[in-house]
Amino acid sequence: MTDVYRLISQTQAEYARTIDNDKLEAWPDFFIDACTYRITSAQSHADGLEGGVVFCASKGMLTDRISALREANIFERHSYRHILGAPCILSENGDRVESETAFIVARIMRTGETAVFATGKYLDTYRVGGGKALIENRLVVCDSNRVDTLLVIPL
Amino acid sequence: MTDVYRLISQTQAEYARTIDNDKLEAWPDFFIDACTYRITSAQSHADGLEGGVVFCASKGMLTDRISALREANIFERHSYRHILGAPCILSENGDRVESETAFIVARIMRTGETAVFATGKYLDTYRVGGGKALIENRLVVCDSNRVDTLLVIPL
Amino acid sequence: MTDVYRLISQTQAEYARTIDNDKLEAWPDFFIDACTYRITSAQSHADGLEGGVVFCASKGMLTDRISALREANIFERHSYRHILGAPCILSENGDRVESETAFIVARIMRTGETAVFATGKYLDTYRVGGGKALIENRLVVCDSNRVDTLLVIPL
Repeated sequence: MTDVYRLISQTQAEYARTIDNDKLEAWPDFFIDACTYRITSAQSHADGLEGGVVFCASKGMLTDRISALREANIFERHSYRHILGAPCILSENGDRVESETAFIVARIMRTGETAVFATGKYLDTYRVGGGKALIENRLVVCDSNRVDTLLVIPL
Repeated sequence: MTDVYRLISQTQAEYARTIDNDKLEAWPDFFIDACTYRITSAQSHADGLEGGVVFCASKGMLTDRISALREANIFERHSYRHILGAPCILSENGDRVESETAFIVARIMRTGETAVFATGKYLDTYRVGGGKALIENRLVVCDSNRVDTLLVIPL
Repeated sequence: MTDVYRLISQTQAEYARTIDNDKLEAWPDFFIDACTYRITSAQSHADGLEGGVVFCASKGMLTDRISALREANIFERHSYRHILGAPCILSENGDRVESETAFIVARIMRTGETAVFATGKYLDTYRVGGGKALIENRLVVCDSNRVDTLLVIPL
């Protein structure tokens, strides 16, 4: 029997590691092809707004997003550090698992200055099978309503 | 056999989620009826002072605390985000488990500004049974001695 | 069979607890005798520089480091709080396990002010046996290049 909690904990840690190690080209591989990836604010989420600041409706769009990000950033960038809480498993239905996971992301400027960049939660649907968990839907709900800068990196 | 480490990890994650999602009315349900809940500072704790800034000696007092908090906050409040470390299991004695868990809490102002609000550790006694872990005693030891503002939300 | 992921998760939590509770004399006991402990910056690490800001090549050097730290700090010091992500297990080879773990460390000044002090990752080799995991090599890669103050406490 798959240990879903463990599997999702480890997948989340790998996900964070991939971004923070700047292996952004590997980021879409955490998702199934027919995925959605959205970033929104807590306020918009509470108001029932579906749009979000970022909306990707397929794995291909995630790949495009990374390509655009690489082209836009000719100069050296800030770096980021994700620290995640343990996932809360909300439901298990066949191979589909819903979870909620808290995150905090620090941003490290090239000058060395470090600050809290974003906090929030991942609302995820995973597809679990063959010892792997792939993201079907990720809704990133940022606690702050100042989400303009969030366009920069994957969360 | 109960996997105590796992059970407490998951309970802590649910506890944090309940607070950060502003489901404060459900917060007392993490405790047994004859519980204690205290908040103190590292300095007071090192000095052996028992009092603490906050002291609740029953689940009923936790419920009262939330009611008071709701009445006091007519206007929209800040939001908070807890990120917890993995628990350290200090002892297991029958259905009673002692653990220590590190936390960091970020506060998100309505303006969008985010900062580290509090750090510290939970010193807990859990009562474990029937696949659940309920808090018998929680002592929240805040690293900072500036604990006045800590009166606001449950930690 | 040893549950390596679990063992390393718990060891990391104990490690952090030992430092944050100022039990620094117990810190070397997380390492084997013939260990290495280094602190470097992400930039130096990316450039392939081996040196690092801190280099200890045995458990004895770790002990010496703590003695020096205790002597240098006659006055009361700041305190620190480590929050760690779940470890990513990179390889398992006999009793040798490599892992990568994200961290964020907050510093609490005596005035009560709290700020993000350091973020980064642990690149570890553990030796696992007898239900314990001891660190053979720990490379602490700090995200920021401002590592001068990092000389103060163990990370």
